[in-house]
Amino acid sequence: MSLEQDVVALCRAARAAAPALAGTSTADKNAALRAGAAALRARAGEILAANAADVEAAREEAAAFVDRLTLTPARIDAMAVGLEQIADLPDPVGEVITRWTRPNGLEIAQVRVPLGVIGIIYESRPNVTADAAGLCLKSGNAVVLRGGREAFRTNCLIADVLADAAAATVPRDALQLVRTTDREAVRVLLRQSDSVDVIIPRGGEELIRAISESSRIPVIQHFSGVCQLYVDRAADLALAERLCLNAKAQRPGVCNAIENLLVHREVAARFLPAVGAALRAAGVEIRGCPESLRHLPDARPATDADWDTEYLDLILSIRVVDSLDDAVAFIRRHGSGLADAIVTTDRAAADRFVAAVDSAALFVNASTRFTDGFEFGFGAEIGISTNRLHARGPMGLRELTTYKYVVRGTGQIRE
Amino acid sequence: MSLEQDVVALCRAARAAAPALAGTSTADKNAALRAGAAALRARAGEILAANAADVEAAREEAAAFVDRLTLTPARIDAMAVGLEQIADLPDPVGEVITRWTRPNGLEIAQVRVPLGVIGIIYESRPNVTADAAGLCLKSGNAVVLRGGREAFRTNCLIADVLADAAAATVPRDALQLVRTTDREAVRVLLRQSDSVDVIIPRGGEELIRAISESSRIPVIQHFSGVCQLYVDRAADLALAERLCLNAKAQRPGVCNAIENLLVHREVAARFLPAVGAALRAAGVEIRGCPESLRHLPDARPATDADWDTEYLDLILSIRVVDSLDDAVAFIRRHGSGLADAIVTTDRAAADRFVAAVDSAALFVNASTRFTDGFEFGFGAEIGISTNRLHARGPMGLRELTTYKYVVRGTGQIRE
Repeated sequence: MSLEQDVVALCRAARAAAPALAGTSTADKNAALRAGAAALRARAGEILAANAADVEAAREEAAAFVDRLTLTPARIDAMAVGLEQIADLPDPVGEVITRWTRPNGLEIAQVRVPLGVIGIIYESRPNVTADAAGLCLKSGNAVVLRGGREAFRTNCLIADVLADAAAATVPRDALQLVRTTDREAVRVLLRQSDSVDVIIPRGGEELIRAISESSRIPVIQHFSGVCQLYVDRAADLALAERLCLNAKAQRPGVCNAIENLLVHREVAARFLPAVGAALRAAGVEIRGCPESLRHLPDARPATDADWDTEYLDLILSIRVVDSLDDAVAFIRRHGSGLADAIVTTDRAAADRFVAAVDSAALFVNASTRFTDGFEFGFGAEIGISTNRLHARGPMGLRELTTYKYVVRGTGQIRE
Repeated sequence: MSLEQDVVALCRAARAAAPALAGTSTADKNAALRAGAAALRARAGEILAANAADVEAAREEAAAFVDRLTLTPARIDAMAVGLEQIADLPDPVGEVITRWTRPNGLEIAQVRVPLGVIGIIYESRPNVTADAAGLCLKSGNAVVLRGGREAFRTNCLIADVLADAAAATVPRDALQLVRTTDREAVRVLLRQSDSVDVIIPRGGEELIRAISESSRIPVIQHFSGVCQLYVDRAADLALAERLCLNAKAQRPGVCNAIENLLVHREVAARFLPAVGAALRAAGVEIRGCPESLRHLPDARPATDADWDTEYLDLILSIRVVDSLDDAVAFIRRHGSGLADAIVTTDRAAADRFVAAVDSAALFVNASTRFTDGFEFGFGAEIGISTNRLHARGPMGLRELTTYKYVVRGTGQIRE
């Protein structure tokens, strides 16, 4: 069978399995997840051996890359725990989102159902294989996984282990993995709009952009973020400093960390020296506008490019603004619409900020780092959508569903 | 300015106007809609003159086409009434969809906001210009309209009339019309993913397919429908006959009319002769499976192609099935997932049917013709989505929105 026929066949198999999975009971889905977790633990030795072969083949790569690729007994157990946690979450399928009765007596219910078949394309972390498979299974979606070629042996084995274990209670074909490292397979996958309902890429901006440009299937993007923290003139400055440190330095390499700090002119002289010292103590390099440099003599000047840059690193650009409106204008121009925060004790200013800034998540007196499915209480996260359609911001199980209308009547006809 | 620059410029103007429109009060949006309605009535003479020129240029076209294109004083008044009805609807923007508090005290609200900029590409009916502009305006979305070239003069004038009238209370640039009949303009529009958030095509299958294939912007499709009515063995047969007549013949040329009638074997002998006579009396041509032809001697045999055909006409294919499961299997194979109905007095059978068939709308003892935004009580309809992502089935104002999360804290940081 050719590569193309192979990919087409597995997408069709997933499509054919989707209705049965959509109709599988919560208990059977949870049993499959728990069986998968048990099998990962029972077969950890095999998985570690397959992973060791992948790591050996990738030993020329950068250390951080090899670290993401490498499994340990603890990481395998974490995958198993993740599946058990998904089993513990409420099943979104069948939930009645809303219901109403029409004057003619028709009873209309909007009922949550799975999206159908989800394609997940991801990079080197092999834990995504278990994580994504678990989230799709729980939400009643068949899944076609395509992992990074460096983790090929590991991903194939994890998918086998899970599919074998789950097959007792869910349709086996509902979990598919593309078993070739040939990149042509991705191009074929992205054309299967008859079989696959949505593509969710998990990885860097380049991967997501390439997929979005060539896909014939809708793509839920999760581009990274240029996030801002705005310190209002009515801010509690001690609180502002704590939030700034957390939003920048607690984990700088993630999309919900801030890249720009905006400070109202009236508090700049009081706030900047203190926050500057605290940032430097945390190892953060500061790049400032001319006005901010007056209060941060050790910082280097920011260039025009700095305001639009996602550093994903211990670097922060600081700008003094004349007003809340200026802060909003800055965010509209330079922000990426993922997450922005205001620090203020002025309720009206907070309301104005959250109304005017159109980002997926707006924070008042809290860190942007909470832009996260777990922190939102979803119990899981398949990604953080930067799309405006379908799902926006952190995506949990519900965001992997759509709905249908169930209309019950007593013989109503349309006149 | 070149055509490309022109289209790019008007998309960017819409994008630039979107935040101000998103922040416009309900009262100001409603005032703009009512002013637009008044202006349509006041300038009806000008609009009729422009329309007469369009009709004159199209006089070689088919009569049905010319009818769709032609405006009358009554049709202009209907457009005005439509805008006033939209003004009377609740504003979806700002609605708190859900809110909750996290254990750490963060208060999270999911708030409805406009999608941003919507591109509407439509065919000959000029009333879509007013209708789509009104729905987008009320839902806080800037809009880029591109109408059919046959209605060019009419559309330009309607857009001018509305934009002039609305400009007193909403940003003028929020309503844009592509002012060229060159088809290249559509190709340029479909590439403006930086300015336009979603494309909604309104027209025939060919238009929608062509747009979907070349768009770099997400498209909400509303393909037509192959809908089914299944008469269960436990059906009230008089009720089944009434529903069948309504679903097929009340208005056959629309997507929510049925194309296939499925009849349980146990009731075929009693049901088919009666429904056959009633259908023939309504002018419906019947094409039947061999089994159904035993009870419908005058009908012609259905071919394999019939089961997948959307007639949009007074033609109905009839198939006898052995069971509810067979009906479900038929619908999964031949239906288009828009709307399907079961007639039964057996609650368990109804529940099984609506669970197993994954269409946008499932009806129990009611006509599929109710698959409609107005009939659902939305008060408006921009289309009937056949997508699974974002919106499914009838789309009203809410379906033209997305959401953002507003998170209020007291200094929470992530550990």
